[in-house]
Amino acid sequence: MDYKLLSNIRGPEDVKKLSQDELKELAAEVREALFNRTTKIGGHFGPNFGAVELTIALHYVFDSPKDQFVFDVAHQTYTHKMLTGRSIAYTDDAHFGDVCGFTNPRESEHDMFYIGHTSTSVSLATGLAKGRDISGKKGNVVAIIGDGSLSGGEALEGIDFAGEMDTNLIIVVNDNEQSIAENHGGLYKNLEQLRKSGGTCEVNLFKAMGLDYKYVEEGNDIETLIKALNEVKDIDHPIVLHVHTQKGKGYALAEKNKEEWHYSMPFNRETGERVSFGNGESYQDIFGKYMLDKIEKDKSVVCMTAAVPGAVGLEQDVRNKMGKNYVDVGIAEEQAVAMCSGIAKNGGKPVFVTNATFAQRVYDQMTQDVSLNGNAVTTVLFSTSIYGMGDATHIGISAMGMFTNIPGVTYLSPTSKEEFLAMLEYSIEQSDHPTIIAVPCDGVNSMIYPVDSNYDKTDKYQVCEEGEKTAILALGDFFNIGVQTAKLIEEKTGKKATLINPRFASGIDRELLDKLCADHDVIVTLEDGILEGGFGQKIASYLGGKDVKVLNYGFIKKFYDGMSAKDALLESRITPECILEDVTSIMKI
Amino acid sequence: MDYKLLSNIRGPEDVKKLSQDELKELAAEVREALFNRTTKIGGHFGPNFGAVELTIALHYVFDSPKDQFVFDVAHQTYTHKMLTGRSIAYTDDAHFGDVCGFTNPRESEHDMFYIGHTSTSVSLATGLAKGRDISGKKGNVVAIIGDGSLSGGEALEGIDFAGEMDTNLIIVVNDNEQSIAENHGGLYKNLEQLRKSGGTCEVNLFKAMGLDYKYVEEGNDIETLIKALNEVKDIDHPIVLHVHTQKGKGYALAEKNKEEWHYSMPFNRETGERVSFGNGESYQDIFGKYMLDKIEKDKSVVCMTAAVPGAVGLEQDVRNKMGKNYVDVGIAEEQAVAMCSGIAKNGGKPVFVTNATFAQRVYDQMTQDVSLNGNAVTTVLFSTSIYGMGDATHIGISAMGMFTNIPGVTYLSPTSKEEFLAMLEYSIEQSDHPTIIAVPCDGVNSMIYPVDSNYDKTDKYQVCEEGEKTAILALGDFFNIGVQTAKLIEEKTGKKATLINPRFASGIDRELLDKLCADHDVIVTLEDGILEGGFGQKIASYLGGKDVKVLNYGFIKKFYDGMSAKDALLESRITPECILEDVTSIMKI
Repeated sequence: MDYKLLSNIRGPEDVKKLSQDELKELAAEVREALFNRTTKIGGHFGPNFGAVELTIALHYVFDSPKDQFVFDVAHQTYTHKMLTGRSIAYTDDAHFGDVCGFTNPRESEHDMFYIGHTSTSVSLATGLAKGRDISGKKGNVVAIIGDGSLSGGEALEGIDFAGEMDTNLIIVVNDNEQSIAENHGGLYKNLEQLRKSGGTCEVNLFKAMGLDYKYVEEGNDIETLIKALNEVKDIDHPIVLHVHTQKGKGYALAEKNKEEWHYSMPFNRETGERVSFGNGESYQDIFGKYMLDKIEKDKSVVCMTAAVPGAVGLEQDVRNKMGKNYVDVGIAEEQAVAMCSGIAKNGGKPVFVTNATFAQRVYDQMTQDVSLNGNAVTTVLFSTSIYGMGDATHIGISAMGMFTNIPGVTYLSPTSKEEFLAMLEYSIEQSDHPTIIAVPCDGVNSMIYPVDSNYDKTDKYQVCEEGEKTAILALGDFFNIGVQTAKLIEEKTGKKATLINPRFASGIDRELLDKLCADHDVIVTLEDGILEGGFGQKIASYLGGKDVKVLNYGFIKKFYDGMSAKDALLESRITPECILEDVTSIMKI
Repeated sequence: MDYKLLSNIRGPEDVKKLSQDELKELAAEVREALFNRTTKIGGHFGPNFGAVELTIALHYVFDSPKDQFVFDVAHQTYTHKMLTGRSIAYTDDAHFGDVCGFTNPRESEHDMFYIGHTSTSVSLATGLAKGRDISGKKGNVVAIIGDGSLSGGEALEGIDFAGEMDTNLIIVVNDNEQSIAENHGGLYKNLEQLRKSGGTCEVNLFKAMGLDYKYVEEGNDIETLIKALNEVKDIDHPIVLHVHTQKGKGYALAEKNKEEWHYSMPFNRETGERVSFGNGESYQDIFGKYMLDKIEKDKSVVCMTAAVPGAVGLEQDVRNKMGKNYVDVGIAEEQAVAMCSGIAKNGGKPVFVTNATFAQRVYDQMTQDVSLNGNAVTTVLFSTSIYGMGDATHIGISAMGMFTNIPGVTYLSPTSKEEFLAMLEYSIEQSDHPTIIAVPCDGVNSMIYPVDSNYDKTDKYQVCEEGEKTAILALGDFFNIGVQTAKLIEEKTGKKATLINPRFASGIDRELLDKLCADHDVIVTLEDGILEGGFGQKIASYLGGKDVKVLNYGFIKKFYDGMSAKDALLESRITPECILEDVTSIMKI
């Protein structure tokens, strides 16, 4: 593939030079480049294949960066990146690493924000418009939103507020009939009515929020799109341009199975077969299987997600079997958590599951709607860890700092498969308080010490090995680092360290800590999270006036962007060798 | 006033026994009881006066607690409390203290949730409905929402999700044409269209979200309301009942000036004059005056609120003078913060101001939309303190635990009026990072030490007094306790303590702390917030391996409900005497 046109696109100005036929040819080349990257290293597939024509038309009509685009979630911006000087990151395998998966101002002046969470584009765009107006700048502000993001509270607040602005603001609703999984929420019925009526249906969410509105049926036809965008360009008030596109357009398998092809691991283009990375057991499988089994036995259990079932072990067949005991609220985390509180109030046993990074949306709901009311909602958080996700937008290492300080919330950090399941069972069956469980992220390990499943004794840590001089409190994911550190300390100092599995990240086992003080010189804490606000600092504070040293190991407070777990661990000295060095430097011999 | 009917209402069953005429008489007695309480101790005035008839009709038609009511915000539930066995708290001055300002399950089985934040009712009600259905219970679930709550993301997520449910759920929209201040957001234009068309206008927000819909114009007429409620009772699908009521109904002044009478301090019923609590300077005034002055000089400054301008010093005349540089997004905190990020991106200087408790809604937006993008948004938080608010729903002492651990956010805690203004000026004028400023809450004090306004040196603490043995890091509101403690320590031990104003709650002054270690035995930290996740624990952690003791003073992690500041301070040993005792017990003599 020689990318005849694409290789000459250095910026949007080059797109504008092309004829209508060449633009179509460009779209074909862009799709080839998308295939080149996604077949080899994976990525967001469906959203990008569906938005090729729309993105080309946007850059053809508008004049970025004077005109400003805000792409929602920004996982659909591969084409945008290609048209703004970054096509080599798609066409040349050696340059795949040049770009991240989302828009990022550090990459290009055409990227307004670094965005990875959904539903933010309209709100951010209202701000750009206001900033433009008060500073006397000119230009269009264009928000592009789709993929289920409309149901998110921030998006709805943004659309509602846009409805009372009196300035240029264009909201392109990229309607591909699909969220990540299926769409949820009544408003998607209205989008369907609007599609079916060619935009003429009087019941209209956007008009009801005070906005002007236009509809484009042929959302994968460049010529039609250019005409429609030209009609709204330089408009003097906010307008919604509702564009009907086809998710996964250009790849038959993705057009057919939209959920499966929202995101893809590397795959074989001929067969669609995914490259396999081994068939090891995953916590996703363990969770999905446990929940299905639990629901089959107990119909008061409800499994709740907010639009990311596939990422948390709830594949289509599992969901189908769960029936009415499975609820997907769509992208609407606040709704999910508040609804869980209501379910618990009426005697149900709700389990909300999501990725930790998305749970950042529910600090208030967890505090007020749930914990203040003492309702026993179980929240299961995946990806709370430095292991895994590479982009700063999706790393969940703030989860402890966020949730362990909310009064009334018990935050549990299991160290193994068995402990995870025991904690899940405990949490679902108790009715006293909300519980958050951080799913381990360092691979599926079996417990090397017996699981003490008596979690009714809140904040009671488990002593796994009794030793002297040094006590290691190794939480959750980092229990294994604790084991290795204990071993190294014994090897190098001849003194066996005490090894503890704290289990409760949100609480302090005062009785045990008082005892440890009496016969240990150093207490080491280990946690897979940003140190500030997390577990270890609670221990350091409790022991601050006591005659013992405390060394907290966790991550330096900063955004971790594309950094490997190994480098991050080294930077924060979270290795057995570093810890040994620190411990021996202060140990009383 | 002898409350002939009201005094015999022991529960909803007694409401059902009354004739239509008696219900009207009951409404009059309820208003008298409302006057009795609010003239003497203040309270939410307008919302309660407007909802008297609606609440009576709800209890007449439905059968609480089998039928379940969820009142949004719950500050409009005084009538509900009177009709469910708690009228004495309104009619008998000696019993005013029997009830809190919101629904609370600890008070009554008729109160489903303890709620003080807005926009939660529909989401909670969807949960009650789901819980009811899976546990085979019967009964209606009724959410009552109004007062501007509709524009909140959680409410919109809830309404959208309700639109795909297929079970009994009744959403009563209590439309009194008003938020706390004026309504904001395009959807309120649609409510107006619906009111004007008697509910027949085809553009209809609720229908666009998939819901059935009915309109009631005479929302203060009990007979009409009973008829309308009977029509939706036991319905088999979700429906919105849009009821047009008059905020402040029954008190001419409140009917006329709705914002002023949303909440009232004690007042003279004849004249409307508020009982004065002295005319001391307030931080609200200081902030409002500063912002107005700033905006007059610099038109790139934008003052942003989310529906609570009156609580933060932005009275109507101030807002009018600010013109386009003032933005109220309505109850929509996520929108406010994301919009600020966009404004900053385009060169504006946004200042978002709200009460700390409502900022709990924006943890994610502050992290991703703002801080990850490095946009210089200033956030001013009122009521971050144990001083002031009495209900657990509104205490802002979690603010530090929430915001100081977000990477890239600088959290400043001023100790005086001068320092507050210097920090505000610094924050607005710098363009490097988001800043949060906790407005002092212990009364307006002037600085007793010179203000060092060089905040560019991030995390640099100010040493106010150099001493020995003990160093006191006294943050923000609690600086004064630090001053007193230092004095007491010097008196009792003969050793002058080092006194430090840390200023930066989010950072660690490593250089200073290392120096303090060398010549001090004990480091004391003082903060007006929940200890866990806050300022002091960062210090204890940093110094955990050093040869110095650290004593952290802040509040025990729990919900503080109706507890006096004095009792809370004592419970957590935050008094000069307690600190002296702790310090001397470990000081090396």
